Amino acid sequence: MPTRRECANAIRALAIDAIEKAHSGHPGAPLGMADMAEALWRGFLRHNPADPAWPDRDRFILSNGHASMLLYALLHLTGYDLPIEEIRNFRQLNSKTPGHPERGVTPGVEMTTGPLGQGIASAVGIAMAEALLATRFNRPDFPVVNHYTWCFLGDGCMMEGVSHEACALAGTWKLGKLIAFYDSNGISIDGKIDPWFSENTGQRFAAYDWQVIGPIDGHDCNALDAAIKEAQAETGKPSLIICKTHIGFGSPKEDSPASHGSPLGENAARTTREAIGWNEDTFVVPGEIREAWDARKKGASLEKAWNEMFAAYAETYPGLATEFKRRIGGELPASWPEISRRARSHATRQTADQATRVASHKCLEVFVPDMPELLGGSADLSGSVGTQTAASNPVDVANYTGNYLFYGVREFGMGAIMNGIAIHGGFIPYAGTFLAFSDQAKNALRLAAIMQLHVIWILTHDSIGVGEDGPTHQPVEQIAALRLIPGLNVWRPCDDVETTAAWISAITSKTAPTALVLSRQKLAQFAHPNQEDLARGGYILKDCQGEPEIILMATGSEVQLAMAAADELNGSGIRARVVSMPCCEIFDRQPDDWKEKVLPANAKCRIAIEAASADWWRRYVGLDGAVIGMTGYGSSAPGKELFKHFGFTVEHVVETAKDLVSKNR
Amino acid sequence: MPTRRECANAIRALAIDAIEKAHSGHPGAPLGMADMAEALWRGFLRHNPADPAWPDRDRFILSNGHASMLLYALLHLTGYDLPIEEIRNFRQLNSKTPGHPERGVTPGVEMTTGPLGQGIASAVGIAMAEALLATRFNRPDFPVVNHYTWCFLGDGCMMEGVSHEACALAGTWKLGKLIAFYDSNGISIDGKIDPWFSENTGQRFAAYDWQVIGPIDGHDCNALDAAIKEAQAETGKPSLIICKTHIGFGSPKEDSPASHGSPLGENAARTTREAIGWNEDTFVVPGEIREAWDARKKGASLEKAWNEMFAAYAETYPGLATEFKRRIGGELPASWPEISRRARSHATRQTADQATRVASHKCLEVFVPDMPELLGGSADLSGSVGTQTAASNPVDVANYTGNYLFYGVREFGMGAIMNGIAIHGGFIPYAGTFLAFSDQAKNALRLAAIMQLHVIWILTHDSIGVGEDGPTHQPVEQIAALRLIPGLNVWRPCDDVETTAAWISAITSKTAPTALVLSRQKLAQFAHPNQEDLARGGYILKDCQGEPEIILMATGSEVQLAMAAADELNGSGIRARVVSMPCCEIFDRQPDDWKEKVLPANAKCRIAIEAASADWWRRYVGLDGAVIGMTGYGSSAPGKELFKHFGFTVEHVVETAKDLVSKNR
Repeated sequence: MPTRRECANAIRALAIDAIEKAHSGHPGAPLGMADMAEALWRGFLRHNPADPAWPDRDRFILSNGHASMLLYALLHLTGYDLPIEEIRNFRQLNSKTPGHPERGVTPGVEMTTGPLGQGIASAVGIAMAEALLATRFNRPDFPVVNHYTWCFLGDGCMMEGVSHEACALAGTWKLGKLIAFYDSNGISIDGKIDPWFSENTGQRFAAYDWQVIGPIDGHDCNALDAAIKEAQAETGKPSLIICKTHIGFGSPKEDSPASHGSPLGENAARTTREAIGWNEDTFVVPGEIREAWDARKKGASLEKAWNEMFAAYAETYPGLATEFKRRIGGELPASWPEISRRARSHATRQTADQATRVASHKCLEVFVPDMPELLGGSADLSGSVGTQTAASNPVDVANYTGNYLFYGVREFGMGAIMNGIAIHGGFIPYAGTFLAFSDQAKNALRLAAIMQLHVIWILTHDSIGVGEDGPTHQPVEQIAALRLIPGLNVWRPCDDVETTAAWISAITSKTAPTALVLSRQKLAQFAHPNQEDLARGGYILKDCQGEPEIILMATGSEVQLAMAAADELNGSGIRARVVSMPCCEIFDRQPDDWKEKVLPANAKCRIAIEAASADWWRRYVGLDGAVIGMTGYGSSAPGKELFKHFGFTVEHVVETAKDLVSKNR
Repeated sequence: MPTRRECANAIRALAIDAIEKAHSGHPGAPLGMADMAEALWRGFLRHNPADPAWPDRDRFILSNGHASMLLYALLHLTGYDLPIEEIRNFRQLNSKTPGHPERGVTPGVEMTTGPLGQGIASAVGIAMAEALLATRFNRPDFPVVNHYTWCFLGDGCMMEGVSHEACALAGTWKLGKLIAFYDSNGISIDGKIDPWFSENTGQRFAAYDWQVIGPIDGHDCNALDAAIKEAQAETGKPSLIICKTHIGFGSPKEDSPASHGSPLGENAARTTREAIGWNEDTFVVPGEIREAWDARKKGASLEKAWNEMFAAYAETYPGLATEFKRRIGGELPASWPEISRRARSHATRQTADQATRVASHKCLEVFVPDMPELLGGSADLSGSVGTQTAASNPVDVANYTGNYLFYGVREFGMGAIMNGIAIHGGFIPYAGTFLAFSDQAKNALRLAAIMQLHVIWILTHDSIGVGEDGPTHQPVEQIAALRLIPGLNVWRPCDDVETTAAWISAITSKTAPTALVLSRQKLAQFAHPNQEDLARGGYILKDCQGEPEIILMATGSEVQLAMAAADELNGSGIRARVVSMPCCEIFDRQPDDWKEKVLPANAKCRIAIEAASADWWRRYVGLDGAVIGMTGYGSSAPGKELFKHFGFTVEHVVETAKDLVSKNR
């Protein structure tokens, strides 16, 4: 029987070898956290390497994602489909072992990590999803949802603001099955951390109402075991186990930032192997150590037991079991066609002017009662952004009922937590804030897009239409910035019918996050004879007789300007078409014939109108067209005055169109 | 003599009246914080309303900027150039009283606030600037720099992650003259905060090593006085005074979120005036209360005393006094022309391939020793981003010497703190992180641009050239997203000479922040016969004989591709021009004849090459041109392989050019 330290050293050796071979990587953290990982993964983690999708597996999140080789070594050693060739191929093109862990690339990797702090923040979301699902689906003797969320995180994660936002909520939310291991090695890239990180982290987490355990010796397997048991024993609070460790453990660069982000180098690699007593060839793990790590048998038996329980559960509670499978599988309710029809029909009947944020709220009033997977919330703007419905019940952490989370003024934390909820499965998280504050959450939106997560952002107060609150609250560049995030669908609908189409797209786009960009102010309603066009992202909302001499493209609140201007132009003998372009990303993915129909290549006389960054629209109007947009910040004044002040008037559109047409005639 | 409460009520009355008249605003916070403001502003704040630029004034930052009417009332009542007409004009176009405080618009407003948490974060930077300047310039009996930084902040600020990042640093930095008042009213927009904000904030700040005072009754002027004195008595730690207050104090909506963000309404406004015993007409403040508030006499005498001290100081230390005035005035050193010439000459001599991050580091090696105003730093990536030079001395908080700040892994906090340093004056802050992590700091960059602050960001590892670290660390959309921020100059230089031009622009652009976007990998060097062209942001780097048939535009690491491709094209009989476009914003501001010279309107055959979001470049190549850019995320592999994989090769550029030319021939 190998010792536990020998088992931990297998991680160390694989990490050293892979990083040396790649000439690139971060050895310090895997060397430092190997004993923590050994204790957790061999002693406590409930998982089945043969089935990384087993719904009740424990979730493990590596928040300090640069320690990727720790995770790959664990997955390899415990028996996931990650053969030694992949370890050898660390950080190479198309390998399953990229530089930082990537969800969807490596079996067993739950989440893409690397941007520090977001792993622990999403772990909070995972733990919340578990708690809510458990209440919903568990029955006496049938704990079908009953797993831990474990997270490793480092000093860098602790410094990042998102750790504050999410961990404060975790305490408030009393997430007793969230257990975090703080790899406190006292070193970050710039050196010994005291001159820039001197907080008492234990005291800080106690202030959040976490159970704080330690500091313990993070290389002492018995201390680790005891700490983990203590953490599990506290069911009413999340636990933080503070593990004092040595970065680069065993290497000549131990306790030095030099071990963090570069290969040890041949000599130091050899010295390290000697120091930890590892005498194998590179990439070789002795059979008995492999055996000691192999979790396949135990994992299979764990999942088998769960499957048996679930089968009995399905007999006793067939409806619940079916619903559980649907929820975990991410399937929409069978009644979805009817639900979406109802929403569309509500929208079609709307004739009075209405803000799209209100239109969005009305969609949610239709969806939420019949879609228990919708888990709503807001960063302290529930009323303004319309995310809370009559059927929204605030989550009660006494018993984890409810379908609505108050995130407080924490946009970034909200984004990372929503990512965690989506990663867990069983929910479609949606939440809202002002569009201007999407800035704060930007990297969480990016991670959602990289992971192709089904999360929905409601971003209201979408332009200078915000009015008196002024430039800090008036988005200008945010819409274009969101459109630049690859894989994010950004909708800016113009009325109720488009808002409903946007929502339907958001709910049915299972592998993409969606941002719904909505107005604060009331907007006109338009006739949409061909509603199926809307799903194409861009379409002809109003056409002229014959070929258009000018195409007016617009989104959201500016569509009404385009429509009024087109009327005037057509009245004065200029053939004008209006193209509504609520979702550029989806329009861009349409077949060429659709794009040609809407925006014929030879129709170069185009004007884009959007009360936001003008430059973006050159993508569609080129250098021959015109853009009526913003080129600087807004101002504090009533919204209507600002639209005039910045040139968003029918007169200005008409004038610009006439100029352009006369130039091209 | 009016009572102190009566004085506070003048703030309340003005706030109510202005918000009612505007039909818009946030009455809750001014009503709640009026007593805190009265205690601080009448009892302690050292300022001179006649001279908002007095260098040694106390700085006051309203982090919860929605309480703008509190600040406007204070400025009006104490005698700043903010007449009652401006108060009446609250939130109207071109008024001096915008919805949230805006630096540069209102005399006495130090900082644009509104995005919660950033006020307190920038206050940390202000206090650090004060401490460093004091060490540099004060002499026995001549404390020419000796002021407090006061900050009001609310629950929302406390929830935001940036408060964690910056306040943790403030504790580490022992900023004894930073005194923050936490307006703890227990209410945020979504209601009573307990379900989403239950942390023990005092304990949290104690964990940061702040002095925590209270909770005290924030409406008890004696308790406030005592707390402020206690805060001032602790000179080795920042102080947090926790003030329990009632939002909407005195109104029927007291202690309710309904008082937060909407006018009280005519009835409630009347009831409130009655409740607080205010019997004046709207916008009327009785003479004796005005007199009690008037700070002009005291302010003039404070500044006079300081001026006298400074005059004596100037006699004793003429060099120091001149230097102090230069620094506070934001003037560059007299030797700047020589310094910049030296940097340029270094760069011109560089022939070997070199990463632009290294080129940037070499510029700093020239600048830092001779420019004491440069206050450097990094978010824990000093070595990687090249911000630390031989002349960079880490700030020692035992005596506040040094010119380099280790910000730790806190990009957003770093940005907000840099803003504060620039707001204070006396320094040009510069700091670096990876470009991908500019996401986290986005809103601080935006605020820098809105405030037109002289701050410099070094953003390295600027593309898939990052290589093995993979998509989370490889920026794609970030460059374009930065370019979308109005008022920010974004430079992406291609070699040492361009990097130096970028740095010179950054240092001489006193009213704009600059982002320097730099490569991790080595790049070729080019001849620049006309160095003055570089300052135009875009210029012809290589031209052909006669009119170009194709223009290849590129930035940064892709310029070398364009240059090699142009050679090949010219060799095969296609006239190709290379335009290097390191700074689009500055190019766009050039006179038309320059733009026409570089990019003739009739030269529609254009290719833009940038290993980043392709869409941005339609701004320059229109619909007729081509873009070789990124349309999705990168991947984990060696950088060179990725450039091939994503089509950034000379062959691909040449092929694309030939296609385009043949289409247009």
